[in-house]
Amino acid sequence: MANDRFEYLANDYRQGFPAHCGFEVDRVDSGIFETRLAVEAMHRQQDGFVHAGVMATMADHTAGYAAFTLVSEDERILTIEFKINYFKPALGDTLVCRSRVVHPGKKIIVSESEVFSIHKSSEKLVAKAMVTLMAVVLR
Amino acid sequence: MANDRFEYLANDYRQGFPAHCGFEVDRVDSGIFETRLAVEAMHRQQDGFVHAGVMATMADHTAGYAAFTLVSEDERILTIEFKINYFKPALGDTLVCRSRVVHPGKKIIVSESEVFSIHKSSEKLVAKAMVTLMAVVLR
Amino acid sequence: MANDRFEYLANDYRQGFPAHCGFEVDRVDSGIFETRLAVEAMHRQQDGFVHAGVMATMADHTAGYAAFTLVSEDERILTIEFKINYFKPALGDTLVCRSRVVHPGKKIIVSESEVFSIHKSSEKLVAKAMVTLMAVVLR
Amino acid sequence: MANDRFEYLANDYRQGFPAHCGFEVDRVDSGIFETRLAVEAMHRQQDGFVHAGVMATMADHTAGYAAFTLVSEDERILTIEFKINYFKPALGDTLVCRSRVVHPGKKIIVSESEVFSIHKSSEKLVAKAMVTLMAVVLR
Repeated sequence: MANDRFEYLANDYRQGFPAHCGFEVDRVDSGIFETRLAVEAMHRQQDGFVHAGVMATMADHTAGYAAFTLVSEDERILTIEFKINYFKPALGDTLVCRSRVVHPGKKIIVSESEVFSIHKSSEKLVAKAMVTLMAVVLR
Repeated sequence: MANDRFEYLANDYRQGFPAHCGFEVDRVDSGIFETRLAVEAMHRQQDGFVHAGVMATMADHTAGYAAFTLVSEDERILTIEFKINYFKPALGDTLVCRSRVVHPGKKIIVSESEVFSIHKSSEKLVAKAMVTLMAVVLR
Repeated sequence: MANDRFEYLANDYRQGFPAHCGFEVDRVDSGIFETRLAVEAMHRQQDGFVHAGVMATMADHTAGYAAFTLVSEDERILTIEFKINYFKPALGDTLVCRSRVVHPGKKIIVSESEVFSIHKSSEKLVAKAMVTLMAVVLR
Repeated sequence: MANDRFEYLANDYRQGFPAHCGFEVDRVDSGIFETRLAVEAMHRQQDGFVHAGVMATMADHTAGYAAFTLVSEDERILTIEFKINYFKPALGDTLVCRSRVVHPGKKIIVSESEVFSIHKSSEKLVAKAMVTLMAVVLR
């Protein structure tokens, strides 16, 4: 069951804005979601670094899907709020986002996302987010 | 002076990822920056609403440029962190973001961004962010 | 009705830790709660300023009671999370906290708190918080 | 050196509001600070749980001292902002806070604090905070 569900979520992840941004799914497990981005010119800001908004989008969306792995199929996950800290400029050509659920509540779920910039096989933690999510039953 | 600087910032705003997203500048004033987005299919998420990441990017980038209006020309603005709350799904075909500086510190500047969804001339507050920025002198 | 309810909430506010800290209620209205603190030695930190934790407690507790003014009598308000920015050291001998509900959702309510330090009748904004609250029905 | 410095910080921690609250230091190491609270009636809120403000104060103060372990003796640590999520009511008679630096920047330091409620030797994660701090040189 879990494998089908995880495969479903990996596909569901790649829609709309996140698909447009180019995020790809690396790994799905219970309470865990990991994604990847091949950085292109469109992802950068005025100083040449990856834009804070790209990392925020990746951190939020991946955190939400980590929560999706823990709820039933008739529930949707909404972002109530999130907070993200930027530690250093993302200069690499690949971003990786690793999200895990830190509080698997019934209604309120909290996930954390760590965003790493990868350059020549060394990875640096460039941002970290705490994301408050709510599970709502589809009508 | 201010007018030239404000015009410069309005153009500077539209680069890289924010330009790619399609954000347009509506208004620039001292400590104030307002932007607009014509929502397209690419901005939505799996449920048809504007993606949280689009609003986060708009809130962060516009907040940063509100700070830019208060610093000298040899300073850059970096996002240290931000927090954004989502109040309701953004269903309209236009988003407007209004940012203003609430703490004009010398080094640390704090801006707030309110994101409104506009549908048939009624506007709804759909998200609000507090953004901590740092002014750094260009080398 | 509202007056009795507001009076009840003003009394309910002053219990346990907030009462111990010495917070007093200044004003209660629909979606609004304002409180005051006469700063004493016990509220300060190692550098002589009011401790960040005092302001955080005041901002959270007052924000929660602003939400209490909007829900029915069988509901309690819980803090899901909050974020607070500190703008400058609080040096005055009085703190005032003004909270208002910015998103009066049915289940999720978001309030903002502004904390002012008052010294010789001039007031300075020293901190601002966004507080995410949840209304839960008492069993 | 480190031992003397750590001992100095353990004593420095217990001043003003945090001392008044009753926080005690459990452990100090490089980038790490851990504290403890014997919960009393004064720490509770209207429903009998430990007040959110107590946990916020503990999370902020302990996070700040984790940062203190990494800076030179002529630097002070100021809280720029923090965000805290509450996962479940703290019902136990002891709170433990474990803070560690996650981004040891030169100027901006980010710490995380996890707050546990201990009841009959089982511990539960009840809150988690991300704290943005700034190192400033004393004049």
